[in-house]
Amino acid sequence: MANEFMADRVTSLKASAIREIFKMVGQSDIISLAGGNPSAEIFPKEILASLAEKILREEGTTALQYGVTEGYAPLRAKVKKDLKDKGILHDTDDALITSGGQQLIDLCAKTLINDGDVVAVEAPSFIGGLNCFRSYNGKLIGIDMEDDGMNLDRLEALAKKEKIKLVYTIPTFQNPTGITMSLEKRKRLLEMASIYDFYILEDNPYGALRFSGADIQTIKSMDDSGRVIYAGSFSKVISPGLRVGFGAARADIFDRMVVCKQVQDVHTPCLNQMLVNKFIEEYDFDAHIKKSIDMYKEKCAKMISCMDEYFPSFCTHTVPEGGIFLWCSLSGDYDTKKIMAECIEKKVAFVPGATAMVDIDKPCNQFRLNYSTPTLSDIEKGIFIISEVLKNVGK
Amino acid sequence: MANEFMADRVTSLKASAIREIFKMVGQSDIISLAGGNPSAEIFPKEILASLAEKILREEGTTALQYGVTEGYAPLRAKVKKDLKDKGILHDTDDALITSGGQQLIDLCAKTLINDGDVVAVEAPSFIGGLNCFRSYNGKLIGIDMEDDGMNLDRLEALAKKEKIKLVYTIPTFQNPTGITMSLEKRKRLLEMASIYDFYILEDNPYGALRFSGADIQTIKSMDDSGRVIYAGSFSKVISPGLRVGFGAARADIFDRMVVCKQVQDVHTPCLNQMLVNKFIEEYDFDAHIKKSIDMYKEKCAKMISCMDEYFPSFCTHTVPEGGIFLWCSLSGDYDTKKIMAECIEKKVAFVPGATAMVDIDKPCNQFRLNYSTPTLSDIEKGIFIISEVLKNVGK
Repeated sequence: MANEFMADRVTSLKASAIREIFKMVGQSDIISLAGGNPSAEIFPKEILASLAEKILREEGTTALQYGVTEGYAPLRAKVKKDLKDKGILHDTDDALITSGGQQLIDLCAKTLINDGDVVAVEAPSFIGGLNCFRSYNGKLIGIDMEDDGMNLDRLEALAKKEKIKLVYTIPTFQNPTGITMSLEKRKRLLEMASIYDFYILEDNPYGALRFSGADIQTIKSMDDSGRVIYAGSFSKVISPGLRVGFGAARADIFDRMVVCKQVQDVHTPCLNQMLVNKFIEEYDFDAHIKKSIDMYKEKCAKMISCMDEYFPSFCTHTVPEGGIFLWCSLSGDYDTKKIMAECIEKKVAFVPGATAMVDIDKPCNQFRLNYSTPTLSDIEKGIFIISEVLKNVGK
Repeated sequence: MANEFMADRVTSLKASAIREIFKMVGQSDIISLAGGNPSAEIFPKEILASLAEKILREEGTTALQYGVTEGYAPLRAKVKKDLKDKGILHDTDDALITSGGQQLIDLCAKTLINDGDVVAVEAPSFIGGLNCFRSYNGKLIGIDMEDDGMNLDRLEALAKKEKIKLVYTIPTFQNPTGITMSLEKRKRLLEMASIYDFYILEDNPYGALRFSGADIQTIKSMDDSGRVIYAGSFSKVISPGLRVGFGAARADIFDRMVVCKQVQDVHTPCLNQMLVNKFIEEYDFDAHIKKSIDMYKEKCAKMISCMDEYFPSFCTHTVPEGGIFLWCSLSGDYDTKKIMAECIEKKVAFVPGATAMVDIDKPCNQFRLNYSTPTLSDIEKGIFIISEVLKNVGK
């Protein structure tokens, strides 16, 4: 083998197919329903421009010098207070600032996953999470999704058969399905964690973006056992490019995550943390988030009405109550990778479902659509073009 | 064992003792000769304030939206051109932007190190590097330092006995010793890499900061075998808080490092990369670096003259030609951890040598001093106080 000098953990890793699609999409006139980005229209550019200028002029040394691994103290204090207010941060926990929510997943995996440890994941799930567990030689096992979240009967059957180390879930407005796990399932998942002795990584980057229905408690806020690690992010509510996320975990796990972060990037850039901190401090953060919610509500409704109008009947979709994605399923033996290739020729892109599965090479008859980035008119055009391609392959 | 649920790789990891010292030092009236920071006096605060404001106002979407894992294209192009001009980037290589030089070390370790693989390191070495290899279950073996760099006879003896996977070296103005590896040794190390089939991570964060002597070619620039991975950084020449570094490696290794970066933090923050890019583009970068060189030359000379005046004869030190550290050795059975405790009571801090060793628990009669951050007068005061403590323990 040519690459036998490489570590086992990386030999079979593949670059995120989604990011490869992005590279293609970014340089053309393609309507992208493939993104996972928040809408750039909502970025508070002018405000952040003024804040950055002020921070660097008045507190330049703090912004530009080395900082503390755990996070910039004022931002960390705000995050901890907010997590405490929401019942997420328990007295036995601690919280840190990370370089995006992605880093929290990595630190959690590095801290908990030994070679071959079973990581049960929603099928489909977030490719950045899946690849991360793969990169620590976790043994991924996919658990199918139902309308109210992960199929817990399947999970329990697995737990009875194999030792599960970690369950990775995005319970609220899941990526890629847009599905939200019911309160009943959240409670049962927690109970199962104690019974079968596993940990839960609750990844919640979209939770603030609810545009219909009622909030459901986070799993972590109901956890008395210290088994839930929580990941949050400012990526979808302020800016993903700044790479500022956060996480909370039981103190002993937190402690190991901090050491792992120290050797990974020393600390999250100070300027970026200070920008987020000042933005929250000086502006109406809730009002800012409300802008995204209103926009995504409108765009999601538009996408759904277009799908209901144009899509052939063998294509069904989820109806998210928030977040930025929805998920389409074709009844029948289709391969959405091939369908995507046809759509791209007609200048529309989406994410084929296989990329979000444990077995990415198995043909998959599902696909992900994003409504946060395209304009209303591109949503209509894009859905129309996809529906034409679908009708054709469905013949 | 209480933490048996954790991954093996993290159970015995310890937080950087240096960073623990920093926390203590940061909150007091202590003169710190313990830092690893560039001087904050040189940070181009006003310039970066204006640039940040301009970037966010005029290119806010690029600065705040998701970016490409490999790096912001204009900065990456500049880095690649510079590395090519210096002979570091070969046609068979590729380069990426990282979240500080530290991340390149992590990506290299994750890509190359299987459990138990031997990583030969300079003894002493950079604690962030050592801890990183520890965190991937590398088997660290320390090779003693001579005045002209790593003892290659010892390294060769090790290579004959055990399979070495990676040699980690900071050949220029090494952390913590300030020692520079001779050209002869660089060439011999490269030859040994081919003979004994190992890789070399050349970590070069201080290379631009030469204040005396003549430049010596980087190891990577002499490498025809594709065995050298190169890590560079803007931390010591612009700002560490921005966390922008870079690296170059053979294309197949680069490719794996990119996938690992994707799951670690997706990409280095766009704003930070754009700031570095604009700074290099619009200002005289060489003139800016020259400011640091002039300052560190003066401070290093001051520290050395104070040591020569005050230190007892059983304490010798290195004479660096650049960088920000020098290294002191006591002849005799001393434990500099204990001496540091005494110094801290007298309001001076340094880094005890044991923290930079493979076996951090073994008493060590050496210590690291930093001259980039203290003022000239604090250098004099600090060295005087340390010398008084030394004279006392030497009685």
